[in-house]
Amino acid sequence: MEMQVLKNPNPKPVKVGEIFFGGSQVVPMAGPCAVESRQQVLACAEALQKLGIKVMRGGAFKPRTSPRGFQGLGEAGLELLAEVKAKYGLLLVSEVIDEDSLRAGAEVLDIIQIGSRNMQNFSLLRKVGRLGKPVLLKRGLAATLQEWLAAAEYILAEGNDQIILCERGIRTFEPATRNTLDLGAVAWLKQEVGFPVVVDPSHASGQRRLVGPLARGAVACGADGLLIEVHPEPDQALCDGQQSLNFEQFARLLQELEPVARAVGKSLA
Amino acid sequence: MEMQVLKNPNPKPVKVGEIFFGGSQVVPMAGPCAVESRQQVLACAEALQKLGIKVMRGGAFKPRTSPRGFQGLGEAGLELLAEVKAKYGLLLVSEVIDEDSLRAGAEVLDIIQIGSRNMQNFSLLRKVGRLGKPVLLKRGLAATLQEWLAAAEYILAEGNDQIILCERGIRTFEPATRNTLDLGAVAWLKQEVGFPVVVDPSHASGQRRLVGPLARGAVACGADGLLIEVHPEPDQALCDGQQSLNFEQFARLLQELEPVARAVGKSLA
Amino acid sequence: MEMQVLKNPNPKPVKVGEIFFGGSQVVPMAGPCAVESRQQVLACAEALQKLGIKVMRGGAFKPRTSPRGFQGLGEAGLELLAEVKAKYGLLLVSEVIDEDSLRAGAEVLDIIQIGSRNMQNFSLLRKVGRLGKPVLLKRGLAATLQEWLAAAEYILAEGNDQIILCERGIRTFEPATRNTLDLGAVAWLKQEVGFPVVVDPSHASGQRRLVGPLARGAVACGADGLLIEVHPEPDQALCDGQQSLNFEQFARLLQELEPVARAVGKSLA
Amino acid sequence: MEMQVLKNPNPKPVKVGEIFFGGSQVVPMAGPCAVESRQQVLACAEALQKLGIKVMRGGAFKPRTSPRGFQGLGEAGLELLAEVKAKYGLLLVSEVIDEDSLRAGAEVLDIIQIGSRNMQNFSLLRKVGRLGKPVLLKRGLAATLQEWLAAAEYILAEGNDQIILCERGIRTFEPATRNTLDLGAVAWLKQEVGFPVVVDPSHASGQRRLVGPLARGAVACGADGLLIEVHPEPDQALCDGQQSLNFEQFARLLQELEPVARAVGKSLA
Repeated sequence: MEMQVLKNPNPKPVKVGEIFFGGSQVVPMAGPCAVESRQQVLACAEALQKLGIKVMRGGAFKPRTSPRGFQGLGEAGLELLAEVKAKYGLLLVSEVIDEDSLRAGAEVLDIIQIGSRNMQNFSLLRKVGRLGKPVLLKRGLAATLQEWLAAAEYILAEGNDQIILCERGIRTFEPATRNTLDLGAVAWLKQEVGFPVVVDPSHASGQRRLVGPLARGAVACGADGLLIEVHPEPDQALCDGQQSLNFEQFARLLQELEPVARAVGKSLA
Repeated sequence: MEMQVLKNPNPKPVKVGEIFFGGSQVVPMAGPCAVESRQQVLACAEALQKLGIKVMRGGAFKPRTSPRGFQGLGEAGLELLAEVKAKYGLLLVSEVIDEDSLRAGAEVLDIIQIGSRNMQNFSLLRKVGRLGKPVLLKRGLAATLQEWLAAAEYILAEGNDQIILCERGIRTFEPATRNTLDLGAVAWLKQEVGFPVVVDPSHASGQRRLVGPLARGAVACGADGLLIEVHPEPDQALCDGQQSLNFEQFARLLQELEPVARAVGKSLA
Repeated sequence: MEMQVLKNPNPKPVKVGEIFFGGSQVVPMAGPCAVESRQQVLACAEALQKLGIKVMRGGAFKPRTSPRGFQGLGEAGLELLAEVKAKYGLLLVSEVIDEDSLRAGAEVLDIIQIGSRNMQNFSLLRKVGRLGKPVLLKRGLAATLQEWLAAAEYILAEGNDQIILCERGIRTFEPATRNTLDLGAVAWLKQEVGFPVVVDPSHASGQRRLVGPLARGAVACGADGLLIEVHPEPDQALCDGQQSLNFEQFARLLQELEPVARAVGKSLA
Repeated sequence: MEMQVLKNPNPKPVKVGEIFFGGSQVVPMAGPCAVESRQQVLACAEALQKLGIKVMRGGAFKPRTSPRGFQGLGEAGLELLAEVKAKYGLLLVSEVIDEDSLRAGAEVLDIIQIGSRNMQNFSLLRKVGRLGKPVLLKRGLAATLQEWLAAAEYILAEGNDQIILCERGIRTFEPATRNTLDLGAVAWLKQEVGFPVVVDPSHASGQRRLVGPLARGAVACGADGLLIEVHPEPDQALCDGQQSLNFEQFARLLQELEPVARAVGKSLA
C-alpha cells in the first residue's frame, strides 16, 4: 500500500487552543475514564487545573465490551464537560462512537477522539474528517501501522489534516499486562509521518503501578503527549479504576516527567 | 465476564427462508466478494442456482482498509442483488456498515452481515438487533471468544436471537496465510453456546488453493455453514480475487464437501 | 528466504515399520502425555493394540515450564516403552530434549520427536539429523512456517529426509483454548513441501472435549496423522490430564475418524 | 503457577567485575552481532573502551534460522574475545547454545548469555545454573513473563541467583518492526521480582534509526542496562547490519542517554 501522501519531511504541529502537539512540548492530558457525576468531574477539573494541565479527558460515550457494562452518561456527560470547560478553561478531548455522539460532541469538544474499536469505522472517520476539528485517532487493538495510517487517510481525504495519533497498546499473547505498549510504533511513526503521536499508558498497561514507568518511557522515546486516567477515588471508579491514578499520584508523575522531557529537549505543556 | 445467558443446552437453529442454520444441514453460501456489475452478479446467481446453492453472498458496501480501494457499488449494488433474488429465488447475505446501509439493506437482505471491523460497533449492533432479522456476526480480527459473545449479547439485548456466528480467521504472527483460521473456536462455540457457527475459509486463508482443505476441515469440525467467495473470473475481480474460486472450482469443492458432511452425520443444504 | 530445496512435486512418504506417513493412510498415534508407571504404560499399550493402533506415544523426558513440574521418568521411562514394544509390537514415538536423551532414545524409539521448545535448538537438530531415523518435528509455539521449514533444513542438511512435521497449535491472544490450531498451515504445507504433516489436537486445544472435533477437522483438511493423548485415568494423570481421552473416548473418536478419512479418499492406518 | 520464590522485596544487584546491574547505574553493553574477524573485534573494542564502555558483546556461536546463514566463528571467535579482554580490559557477554559452547564460553566470558531460542532449553539452563557465573537470560520470542521467570527458576534451582533478564522484543502481528519491544514487561518485572532487567533495542526494532528512541525509552522506563549492536561498518556486517550502529552513531546515543539516565536518578556505568 502506498503511503506517500503521509510522508512529511516538515511535520506540521496540530494546534489546539494555545497548545501545539508535535513540537517541542509534551502535552499531558488527563482525567477520568468515564464522566460519572458533576461532583467527580468538577473535582478532577479543579485538581488538574491546579497542576497546570491544559487538556482534560473524560468519557461520555463509553463503548463497552458487554451491554451490561456502564455505558457512560452520554449527552448529560458532555454537558458536565461543557460546564468544566467554561469554569476552568480546560480544553476537552472525548470519544465519539457514532453519528449522534459526533454531532453532540462537535459542539463541546476541542479534540474528537476515535477509539480503538472504531479505528476502521470508515463512515465515522469520514464524518469526523468533514468536521474539520482536531482528531485523536487511537490505534486499533490489532491494527498494523499501515492500517492505522490508512485509517488516518480517510480523515485526510475529507480535507482534515489535524490528526493526532494515539498508541494505546496492542493485543498480544501476554496476559500480565492489559495490552502491550508498542513504543517501537511511536519511534517509527515519528520518523515516517508528520502526525503528532501521543501515548495512553493507562489502557496499555491496565495497572496503576505501571503507568509511571511507561509514561516516562513514552516521553523519552519521543511521544508528543500522554493520555492518563486520573480519578478522585480510583477504587470507586465505575470504569477502569485499577489503571487510574489519584491526584497525588498524578502530581508525582508530572514531577517525574518534567526532567525526562527536558532530557530529550522538550518541556511539559 | 458472565456469559450464562448465552449457554444453551438446547440450541435453537436459525431459520432463513426454508434453510436451517444449526441443525443437521451444512449451508454453503457463496458469491463474489464485491458486487461489481449486473453481468457479474447475474452470472454468479445463475451458476450458483444450478449448483443447488440457496444463499448468495455479495458485498455492496465494502469497508476497505484504504480510502483509495474500491468501496463497492453501495445502494446500486443492493438493487442488483434484489434483481437476482427476484429472478433466481436466492436468499441474500450482505454486509452493512452504518445506519444508512443498514436501512437500505434491511429491505433486500435475508441475512444482515456485520463484518469483522464492526464487531464492536455497538451502535450498529443495537440497531441491527432492533431490526429482528437474522444476523451473521463475523468475529473481529483480534476478538477473543468472550468478546465476540459479548458483541452478540448487544444484538440479543434488543430481543433478536437469530444470530449466526462466523469465524473468518484471526490475526496472528504468521504471514504465510492472510489470517489464521481458528477451528478450535468453532468447536468451543458449538459446545458452549446455542448459536449456529459458520466459517469463511476464503478470508481466513486469502489463497484460492487453501479454501478447499479449510472448508472440508470446517465441516468435519462441526461448522453449520460456509461463506465462500466465488467469481466468474477471479483474476479480474475488483476485490480479493486471489482467494476466489471460479464456478468450476466451486462445483468441485461442493463434490468434495458432500461426503465430509455425511461423515459427520449431516448433509449439504 | 529460499526454500526451494524443500519444494517437492513428488512427495515421498516416510516409512516407519510397515506404516507410511504421507500416503493414503491417516496414522493415529496415541498414548499418555508422560510415561508414569509400568502399570500405566502396559494398560495403554494393551488398549491401543486392541484398537488397532500401530504407533504409541509416551513422554519419558518431559520439558516442563517450571522446574517444580513432573519432569518424566527419563531413561526408566524409555525402558518401560521398550518393554511395551517387545510385548505388543507397537512402534514408538517419544521426545528427546538433549544429547543424553537422544542417545538413549535412539536405541528404543522408532520416531524421534523434537518438541516445540526445541524446534530451534540447532545443535539438537543436527544431531538428530545425523542419526538417520525418522524425526517428528513439532512446530515452535510462535514459529512461522518458513522458520519451521528452515529448522527442518538443519535435519535435511545432515542427510536425513525422513521428516514428519507436526502442527500442534500456535500461541495467539485467545485464552479460551490452550493454543490455536493452525489448519491453514497444514493445508499450506501439503501444497508447498513434500514432508508428511501430522496434527496434535490434544496440545492444540488443551481440552478433552475439543480433541474430537479438531481431529476430524485435521483429517478432512489433509493431515497425514494424529498425535492424541490417551490415559487409563485422565483425571489421575501427572501431566496434561485435562486434554487426555480415556480408552472409551478414544475408541469412539476412532469410529468418528474412519468415515472422515474415507471422505477424503484415505483410510486409518 | 506460583512464583513466590522469585518475589524479592530487597532486590540484590548482580555484580560483574566492578559493575553492578540492578542498582543506580545503567549499564550500556555494546559490540557486534557476530565476531567476524580479528580486525573487526579489535576495532570495536578500541572504540568502545574510548567511549567508556565496560561490557562488550559479540556473538561467537550464532543460532541462525537457516543452516545456510553464517553460524559464527565458534571457538575461534571466543579466542578473539579473550584477546580483547586481555588487551582492553573489557568484560565480555556472549551467547552459548549447547554443552560444548558453554564449556568453551565459561573460560572466557564474564556473563553467559542464553538466547531467546534457548530460553526453554532446560538442559542448558540447568548446566548454566551449575556454573555459578552471571547469566543474561533473554526472553523467548513468545514467552509470557511467567514462563520467563519459570525459566529463570531452572537456573536458580541450581543455586545460581546471578540472573540478569533481557527483554528483546516479542513476536506480534506487526511487520513494521522486527519484534515488538515490551517495556511494560520491564516495568512489571522491576516491581515483581528482584532480578535486574536490561533491554536489547537492536533486536527489538531491527532498524538502526529506531535504536536510539527505544534505548532512551527503556532507560526512562527503568531498565538496568542496554545491549546494543555496534559495528565498524554496519553495511558490511555478516549478520544484522541493518540494526547496527557505527561508532559515531553509538557515541551520539550515549550522549543522549546520559541525561535520560539522570532524569530517572541514575547514571551510565
